Parts: sequence; C-alpha cells; structure tokens
Amino acid sequence: MNVSGMLRDDALKGKTIIVTGGGTGLGKSISRYLLQLGANVTICSRRQNVIDETAKELMDETGGQVLAVACDVRNTAEIENVIARTIETFGRIDGLLNNSAGNFISPTERLSYKAFDTIVDIVLRGTYYFTLAVGKYWIENKIPGTVLNISTTYATTGSGYVVPSAVAKGGALIMTKSLAAEWGKYGIRLNAIAPGPFPTKGAWDRLFPEPLASMMDPTSRIPLHRVGEHGELANLAAFLLSDFSSYITGESITIDGGEVLMAGEFSHLENVTTDQWDMIEQTIKQANRASKKE
Amino acid sequence: MNVSGMLRDDALKGKTIIVTGGGTGLGKSISRYLLQLGANVTICSRRQNVIDETAKELMDETGGQVLAVACDVRNTAEIENVIARTIETFGRIDGLLNNSAGNFISPTERLSYKAFDTIVDIVLRGTYYFTLAVGKYWIENKIPGTVLNISTTYATTGSGYVVPSAVAKGGALIMTKSLAAEWGKYGIRLNAIAPGPFPTKGAWDRLFPEPLASMMDPTSRIPLHRVGEHGELANLAAFLLSDFSSYITGESITIDGGEVLMAGEFSHLENVTTDQWDMIEQTIKQANRASKKE
Amino acid sequence: MNVSGMLRDDALKGKTIIVTGGGTGLGKSISRYLLQLGANVTICSRRQNVIDETAKELMDETGGQVLAVACDVRNTAEIENVIARTIETFGRIDGLLNNSAGNFISPTERLSYKAFDTIVDIVLRGTYYFTLAVGKYWIENKIPGTVLNISTTYATTGSGYVVPSAVAKGGALIMTKSLAAEWGKYGIRLNAIAPGPFPTKGAWDRLFPEPLASMMDPTSRIPLHRVGEHGELANLAAFLLSDFSSYITGESITIDGGEVLMAGEFSHLENVTTDQWDMIEQTIKQANRASKKE
Amino acid sequence: MNVSGMLRDDALKGKTIIVTGGGTGLGKSISRYLLQLGANVTICSRRQNVIDETAKELMDETGGQVLAVACDVRNTAEIENVIARTIETFGRIDGLLNNSAGNFISPTERLSYKAFDTIVDIVLRGTYYFTLAVGKYWIENKIPGTVLNISTTYATTGSGYVVPSAVAKGGALIMTKSLAAEWGKYGIRLNAIAPGPFPTKGAWDRLFPEPLASMMDPTSRIPLHRVGEHGELANLAAFLLSDFSSYITGESITIDGGEVLMAGEFSHLENVTTDQWDMIEQTIKQANRASKKE
Repeated sequence: MNVSGMLRDDALKGKTIIVTGGGTGLGKSISRYLLQLGANVTICSRRQNVIDETAKELMDETGGQVLAVACDVRNTAEIENVIARTIETFGRIDGLLNNSAGNFISPTERLSYKAFDTIVDIVLRGTYYFTLAVGKYWIENKIPGTVLNISTTYATTGSGYVVPSAVAKGGALIMTKSLAAEWGKYGIRLNAIAPGPFPTKGAWDRLFPEPLASMMDPTSRIPLHRVGEHGELANLAAFLLSDFSSYITGESITIDGGEVLMAGEFSHLENVTTDQWDMIEQTIKQANRASKKE
Repeated sequence: MNVSGMLRDDALKGKTIIVTGGGTGLGKSISRYLLQLGANVTICSRRQNVIDETAKELMDETGGQVLAVACDVRNTAEIENVIARTIETFGRIDGLLNNSAGNFISPTERLSYKAFDTIVDIVLRGTYYFTLAVGKYWIENKIPGTVLNISTTYATTGSGYVVPSAVAKGGALIMTKSLAAEWGKYGIRLNAIAPGPFPTKGAWDRLFPEPLASMMDPTSRIPLHRVGEHGELANLAAFLLSDFSSYITGESITIDGGEVLMAGEFSHLENVTTDQWDMIEQTIKQANRASKKE
Repeated sequence: MNVSGMLRDDALKGKTIIVTGGGTGLGKSISRYLLQLGANVTICSRRQNVIDETAKELMDETGGQVLAVACDVRNTAEIENVIARTIETFGRIDGLLNNSAGNFISPTERLSYKAFDTIVDIVLRGTYYFTLAVGKYWIENKIPGTVLNISTTYATTGSGYVVPSAVAKGGALIMTKSLAAEWGKYGIRLNAIAPGPFPTKGAWDRLFPEPLASMMDPTSRIPLHRVGEHGELANLAAFLLSDFSSYITGESITIDGGEVLMAGEFSHLENVTTDQWDMIEQTIKQANRASKKE
Repeated sequence: MNVSGMLRDDALKGKTIIVTGGGTGLGKSISRYLLQLGANVTICSRRQNVIDETAKELMDETGGQVLAVACDVRNTAEIENVIARTIETFGRIDGLLNNSAGNFISPTERLSYKAFDTIVDIVLRGTYYFTLAVGKYWIENKIPGTVLNISTTYATTGSGYVVPSAVAKGGALIMTKSLAAEWGKYGIRLNAIAPGPFPTKGAWDRLFPEPLASMMDPTSRIPLHRVGEHGELANLAAFLLSDFSSYITGESITIDGGEVLMAGEFSHLENVTTDQWDMIEQTIKQANRASKKE
C-alpha cells in the first residue's frame, strides 16, 4: 500500500511554517507535504538559486504558496530577515521546522577545531538562534506556535565517526525538551524526529561515500531490512506540526526501521539458521541437565 | 479546532484489530476511532456483559463490526479463544492493542506479595501471553502484523506509590523493544504509547481517589496546563496501528502535555513572577561583578 | 595494574549483606570481595550443597563469616526464612544483592508460555518478593538499608533472542527507580549494575553455547576489545553497597567496556583503514566542491 | 559515618590529571582528593590569582604537586599551553576532568543571542576543544588516558530556566558517549558524572539567588532529603579517573539523592499521611466492589 499521505487534506490549512534547509532532500519532501495539506511554507537555505528553483517546483506541483529567503542560520540578522519577510508575506508564523544540517564521516582525531566548530555552528547554534528568535515573536504575540527539530538516533545514543554532528544534535534535543518544559505555559510545543537512514542526494553521499558505500549495506543493521521513504517521514513531520498532536510536547520520535534497537546485546543473531537453533537448544538442554545433576 | 480525527477516512479499511480492555475507558475510545477508520475490532475484557454493551453501542455509532469475547488475559486458553474467534469471524488478525491494565495508588510497604502479583500478572503477564500467542500466529501465517502497547511515562522514569504497575509497564516496554528488534525480519512491528493523565471513569478513581483528588491538581505539574482528550490519544494509536507508521518500530511515544519534563531540575520555576525575575537578574549581575573584582 | 580491590579495607566492616545466587559465578565473586571488606554475607540459592561448599571456601579464603541458606526466590516462605536466619545469625541486615537469574538464548516464537514464565518468575518475581520482604523489615526497624540489583544493558535497550530475561530485567530496573523515589524518605537506597559480558561457568554457556561460541567473538562488538574481569564488577558492587555511595540512589551503572554504545549509527566503522579514510576524505571534499559550484 | 575517602591511599599514584575550573568549588574539592590519592594535578581557570592561591593551599594541605596555568577554555592556544606546561612539568597526562562551567537561571525569552552563546561556548565548546586536544596527544603517544566530564541530570531530562546550560551539557554528554565508542580501540575511556545539588560558593548563588533561595527549599524535591557533600562527589570522580573503573566507558553516573526520580508521575505523594492512606485504601476498595457488582 501507499504509506504516504496519511492526514486529512485540510490538516494544515491556514498555517504558515518556516522550513530551514528546505531547498533539498528531506526538507524539500516535507515542505511538499505541508503544502499539500494547505500550509504556506517559507523555505530558506544559503543558496538563493537552489531555493528559488525548489519554490517554483513546489508551487507548480501543489498549488500552494512558497516564499524563498536566503539565510545562513549562523547569522542572526539573516534569521530575523526570514521571520520579517514571512510575516510580511503570510501574516504570521505558526510553525518552525529546524532541518538545516551539515555532517560528514571522519575519525574525530583527524578533525581540526574549526571543522568541529563548523558542524556545531550550523546544527546547534543555528537551531537555538532560530528557535529563540521565533519563540520571542510567539511569546510577544501570544501565538501558540510549534517547533519541530530534525534530530537523529545518535542524539541519544551518541556515535563515533560523526562526533561534531552527534554533539550538536544532542544539544538540540535537550533544547527541545527544556523549552517544551518552560514554554508550555505559553501554549508553545517543541518536538523532534529522530530518523534512521533516509537516502537523499547530498547528505547521504557525505555519510556513505565510496569506498564505504561498496563495503557496507546500511540495511543489514535494520530489523525491517530497508531504508526509509520520504513519505513516511513527511507523515510524521506533518502530524507533529499539526494541531492533531496538540498534547505531545518535548518528545523525540524515532523512525528508523528499528535500527537503534540493534544496541540489544543479542539482537544481531538474526543470521543463525533454524538448524543451528536446534543445535543450540540441545546444547542448552544438556547444560541444564548436567547442572541439575551436580 | 477539533483535535480529533486526523487520519484519512479509510486509513484502517479491511484491518482487524484486537483491543484488550476494550470495554471501557481509553480502550473503548480508541476502538471507536479504529472502527470509524474502517477496521473490524475484537474487544475483550473479563466481563461479558460490559463488552457486549460496548460492542452494541460502538456498532450503532460507527456502523463498523465489533466482536466481543470475554477473556482474562492471565489465562492462555482464553487468549487463544479470542484469537480463534477473531479469525473465524473476520478472517485474520492485523493488529493487537494491549490495553488491559490494573492499578491503584498505595505505599509499597502496605502491599502483600499477592497484591503485587495481581497487578503484575494482569499488566505484564497478560501482555506477553497475548503478544506471544498472536506473534506465533503471524509468523506461521506470514502476516506482517503490528502490536501497540499502552504504556506510561513511569515505565521509563519509575514512580513511587504505583510500584507494581511501574514494574509491569517497565517490563512490557522492554518486551516491545526486544521483539521489535527480533521480529522485524518477519515484518512485524511493535510500538508503545506512554500517556500522561487522560481522565476515565474507573482507572482514574483508583489513581486520584478522595481525599487525594481534593488535595492536588494534576494539571499543575503539566507544562500545557490541562489533561488530555481521548481523541488526542486515539489519533496517535490509530497512526501507530496503521501502515502510515510503517517505518516506526520499537518506539514508545509519550503524549502527556509535557508532564514528564518536570523532571528537569529547574522546570518548576513557572510561578516566579516577572518582578521576581527582575530582582533575580539584579542579584546575579551583582554576584558576577563581585566575582570579577576578586 | 591490578584493577581489583579498590576500596579501603574496612569499607563494609560490620555490615551484613544477603546475596541471592551467591553460590556461583559473579555472585560468588562479589561475595568474596564483600567478605574481604569486612562484611558478613548470607548466600542463598536453590541447591544447599552448592552454597555450603561456597560458604566453606569463602570463609577459609577470607576469614569472614558466611551463612548459607537454601532458597528458591519464587517462594516467599523460603525468602522469609533467609531473612529470619540472617537476623538470628548476624543481628541485622544492611544490604541485599539481588543476583539470582536464569537466562538462555532462543528465538521467542520457539518458547512456550511456561518457559517464558520460568525466567520472569526467577528474575522479576524473585527480585520484588525479596525486596518487598527486606524493605518491610527495614522500614519497621528504621534501618537505612541498601539494595543492589544485577541488571543488564538490555534492561534499557531491549534485546532479541533473550526476551523473557529482557522483560524481567526491564521490570526490575523500574522497580529500582520507583522504590528509590518512594523509600528515600526512610533512608533506603536502591541501585543497579548493568554488566556487559563477564564470563562465568554456567550462565555463559547458556548465552554462548556451541555452535554459537565458535561463530562469533563477543569482544568484536566491544569498544575496549575485551570481556570484563570479576574484580572490576566487584569494585562497583562493593562501592554501591557501601556508605561511600550514600548520595547515589535509583541509578543503574553500566559496566560493559562500551558495548552498548555500538547502538551509535556509525560506531561500527572501526575496521575502516587509514588508507580508506584518506579516500573517503577525498570523496567528501569533491562532493563539497561540486555542491558549491552548483 | 564518614562518607568521604573511599579509595585505597595509592589509587592514583603517579597519575597526572588536568582539572579545568579547578580553582574553586567542586573542581577544587575533587582536586584535593586526587592529590590525596597520589596524583599530580594541573588546575586551570581564567584568573591566575585564584588558581595560584588554590594551588598553594592544596599543596600545603596534601603534600602533592599542583601546577596552576591560566586558561580560557574557549581559546585553543591557551588549552594547548596548559597541555604543554603539564607535560613539561609532570612528564605526561593521564586524565582530564572537564569541570569548567557557567550557568545562571533566567526565563529563556529574556536572553540575548550573545548571553546564550556565552554559556554554550564555555561549557560545550570548551569541553570539546580540550578533549580533542588531549585526545590527539593520547592517540599520538599511545597513552590510554581517561576523560571525566561534569555533567548534570538535566543533560538528559532537559530543564527550563537554564536552557543554554542544558543545551551545552546535553551536547557534552553525547560527546562523552560518542568518543567512548570511537576511541575505545585506543584504550581511551570517557565518562561523566551528573550531580544533583551540591552547594558551592559561586555557582550556587547564580542558581539559587535571592529572592528564590528564600522561596524554595531544594531538598524538598530530593528523596534523600538533603543536598550532597563534596566528599561524596569526590569519591565517584576519583573512582572514574582511576584504573579501578577500567571497564566503564561512555557512562554517565547520576549522584543526586534521587532528585531526578521525582519525574515519576506519583513520586511526589510523600506528604500524604498514614491516616490519609487509610482513607484512600477504603475509597479504592469501595470502588473495586462497586465495579465488580456492575
């Protein structure tokens, strides 16, 4: 069956949502679904030409309204410009999707201080700058807005070889919980999604570059034996940005086909055959008998 | 706006779902929404008269098909009867909602071994018996079914004064993760919902009995300052039982208005006034100046 | 250096501690260290001959006092007998180490209800029965006792192929947190240890039986590349049972050489060589340049 | 009994440990204990006069060797100077205690971007700069060093009103886990401590300033009903920096008197009296009888 498109057609009617990193990849896929559900969307990223093209494509495809404003999320003046332009265009802001990111795999000891900083600044600083700016606007204007942060499973577990990203995503996740606790009194909600492997042009190539891509199959570590589809992530994102999730706040929802569960000490025994399990069962029964006799 | 009814109308068309404890409370509310989305539902609980009445009411209301089979979830023969009757009636089983529970507040040292056992047997034993029975049926018949367990936030945090329930829900949550890891290869998914306070006739009176109910306001500990509505829980449950959540497994989703976030060491400062914050700001600035001078 | 024997020699002088499953394996190793630190120890397990032999061996070795009382932890009368005999012999009880366990690997769908129950009853029921019994004695006698539960990393992560054990350990962990919250007012502390792989005769053979043992090397999944030594676990257990940990309660401490961290999405890239990392770095730099040009 | 001083006297003999923020508060208390156990200690903080005074005091008191080097942890050149001076003085480095911090309470919407940055830069950037610098030295020189980070319980739970600190500590905790996973192969361990309330001159006044201090009693939220003693924290820190914890890595240990457990939904019922519990028991029994009759 088609696993995309779960929400009623008017689920986001009249809402305006800012999507950082909305020009490509998952940010673009989610923006498309938000538009299909009736939302106005502001997309931003560093390159104006990329988001202009995406804006045109998404408007043609969905008939919705898209504003494209260039923005480096490390720059607070540019963030405030996105906010001002969005209010000017759509009247107000209801949601913020912090999706901008940067990441690549590397042994940590090969990184310079500056390389480490770059990732942390885009992912963490960008997230708290944007959230602080929009949050102040919401509190001042008594708007019960909602923030959704694209996190990752290793924001909780940690992960080697992507340490600056893990650090930044870990910090952003705790921001999500902390502000959900503090700003609940204003009706503001904050949540996160922790996706497993969802292939995209771009980010994916920095995480599974050659020769790595030929060496390993990411689906072998995933209980459901496949990578995710963009529509599956878009369902969850739209739900969390809509009023249908109105009693959920401070939560991070994992959507990873069970990948993170492979932490379980014996969860990797999947390739043991039935015959081998028969042998193992016999071995254990014998051990039990021997131990009872003692 | 109406926060109920988020999914497309045919989201569960043709699915058959067993709901334990489906005769009353949240189980009944969720069953209603599953029926509205096109599912067939088997409800079970210990008292046949209660579920018969509920079955009639829900069929009249939704036009859907409901089977009511009495079952004590601690009895494996009765569980197997529910399964057999459901297959006989609806042809197959696609989902299982483990919702049966028992709970009451008490200092733990006032409990007998037997009182402790009773709660654990209903909540934990009942959950793994039913899941084991349905899981074997799915594996044998190559059906990619899905299990949803009603958990609680204290399945992770623990909680005093409801310790048998916490123990049992804690165990059931780990079952959810463990089997999601193991049975992913069969296409079987297991997830959980951890609700905060959702008032129901019955369970609620055992958790907030007089004189407690008059002594405390449960909403004072909740960032969003209100209890949950059944429709909000039903949205989430239907999502997790539908194919729209097809890449989510082994996950527990908290829906509690942020209650669990009050764990944060300083999250309870909500009642400090603006004037007091002004004073605090001055105090801190003075401390900073003093410390720089040293 | 020698990693055993960290505490000052009199760290447990005058304390009396009950160790369930103290006749063999880790329970025996910990008992030995508790005795060396000056504690009296009651060991119990189902087979009187095994614990008699262990008691003699440990007394000869350490010069400490050991009482051996047979006990099936699923039987509350036998538990109460252990408690009565310990008070009779040593005057009082200061600590309880819940260490009895049962476990074996198997696909869950191969298990009968009864096989599942057996593990849960030993591990979970035995733990809450014993804790409830000793806790009531402490509260009645105003003794600020301490409980230590031997848990496992999959009490939090879950794990396939050892599901009854995971369920039971998961429940026992939440008991630890719940009673720590509730009984703190009596000065009673409860903590847990989550060990990774510590080889023992017995338990180990049911988890890594042939042909599994020849197929897999458990150390390959462990960042520190080795299994644990009993002395390392004994250090941590003695610390948590002593007054030196007096401000720690409700905590579970993992000691696993980092095994559980392999949950991290990219943590398994350890075998990528330096040359391959050089290639990967080039691939990523090229991707970055290409993306900037666009 | 005296809860300080648990380790054998020579537990850190010959080790050299750098303590950031070692001039005052908990950093000074831990440094004292490390010296008593035979370690050489380098303390650093921004103000040379403060650490000079502490160095003299600690050397007089313990007879150990202390090097005091001024350092702003946001400045990589100053960090590298601390490392070089330590190697020059003591020959090598075995441990790093990341303890520098900054924090104050405030509603988040009252913060400027710059105020937010300041906390994050000291706490998070300082931690990853120092860890990266020392880690590279260890890997190059094949030294199996160990890092200990002073975290907080809200690095996991989040907390309102201290959001920049929560974000930074959250990120640093994930760094701890991530590098423990990645650098285990070099024999490098990283762990964290999450302390609850340990009063110190300085930090404490920024968290509990007047009029807050008069309004609230921090011990009322703590199951053990008291704040922590520095000696209790020093025990745990010394253990984790010593070889006695050699199989523990990537772990964060909470020492908070159970404060974080108050997250449990019903854990706050401590003030219900025995008479009230008697009434509650009656109310519940009546509800049960009524529900059975139905």
